[in-house]
Amino acid sequence: MADIVSLQKLIEEFRKMPSVGLKSAERFAYYVLGLDDQEIKSLAGAITDAHEKIHTCSICCNLTEGEKCDICGNPKRDVSTICVVENPRDIAAFERTHEYRGVYHVLHGVMSPINGIGPNDIRVKELISRLADDAVNEVIMATNPTAEGEATAVYISKLIKPMGIKVTRLAYGMPVGSDLEYADEVTLSRALDGRQLL
Amino acid sequence: MADIVSLQKLIEEFRKMPSVGLKSAERFAYYVLGLDDQEIKSLAGAITDAHEKIHTCSICCNLTEGEKCDICGNPKRDVSTICVVENPRDIAAFERTHEYRGVYHVLHGVMSPINGIGPNDIRVKELISRLADDAVNEVIMATNPTAEGEATAVYISKLIKPMGIKVTRLAYGMPVGSDLEYADEVTLSRALDGRQLL
Repeated sequence: MADIVSLQKLIEEFRKMPSVGLKSAERFAYYVLGLDDQEIKSLAGAITDAHEKIHTCSICCNLTEGEKCDICGNPKRDVSTICVVENPRDIAAFERTHEYRGVYHVLHGVMSPINGIGPNDIRVKELISRLADDAVNEVIMATNPTAEGEATAVYISKLIKPMGIKVTRLAYGMPVGSDLEYADEVTLSRALDGRQLL
Repeated sequence: MADIVSLQKLIEEFRKMPSVGLKSAERFAYYVLGLDDQEIKSLAGAITDAHEKIHTCSICCNLTEGEKCDICGNPKRDVSTICVVENPRDIAAFERTHEYRGVYHVLHGVMSPINGIGPNDIRVKELISRLADDAVNEVIMATNPTAEGEATAVYISKLIKPMGIKVTRLAYGMPVGSDLEYADEVTLSRALDGRQLL
């Protein structure tokens, strides 16, 4: 098949997608060749459409097709609490709890010196300018419990604290329904440190 | 994210691809959102391009951008031997051996009554009409060694034999470099049946 230029090009494009190797890319390419005109229009259209229509919310940097996302546009949400997350998918996780009534701020990444990602490459400036404007009481740092997520949370909290705003971090501990026997040492010692009165 | 119509549409399109679940489709969609204008054009263009330019060879049904594929267009290939394969990727496997000098015929599938695929849904007619025209001495049935590949080979051989053309099947046996200890019974008994003089 090495002679078919447009097929090679398509396979290369699919290989660029996350966790797609040569075999998967080839399978995707043959799938595309098997589609009819209408289906091709639908696939290519969905790609260009999403790229054209979706941008970040002018307030919280969440993804949206409008000027503001649905959460920032909802007058019932409590704008005095901002939950800071790494990416838009994390918001969906919080919304599924039906517990949180505040608003969000999406960083679109974490600081990672090893990959050359500093505070100016994620949406930190936008968060700080939001805090200057709004009547915010609390910022919940909900970056992932990884080394990079942790470092980002600490860095941002140092910027916010001098503004007199409370900064909190999600609790570490045992996941609900998990088994102590299989807990890793770090999680278990964090759960011990954070023990609470019954 | 449930509110973003164009994102949902894109995720659905990716989910239709082979072995892509919801999580992978979401990751692909976010990958697309992260591309710049040029990269989007390149991806969407590769999809529509491949679909427009690639069609089947007028002789052997292999994929090609021209009227004939490179193999049918090569005067050095021996047109008296046709190797019948299930799909275009199988041709690449044979070409890698640098042994086979004949031509091919691509069925684009196998007969599979359970999935409602009969002889008219694959390129059998095209093969038969080729045999009427050309000076073909031998047809090698190289469908996969599966129940369906086997049934397809037997079905097609019954159509060809009355035309006085030799029909052969790839040998079954132990894969080179494999270990007898781990061979399955069917393969091993086929290897025994097909034993040859040393």
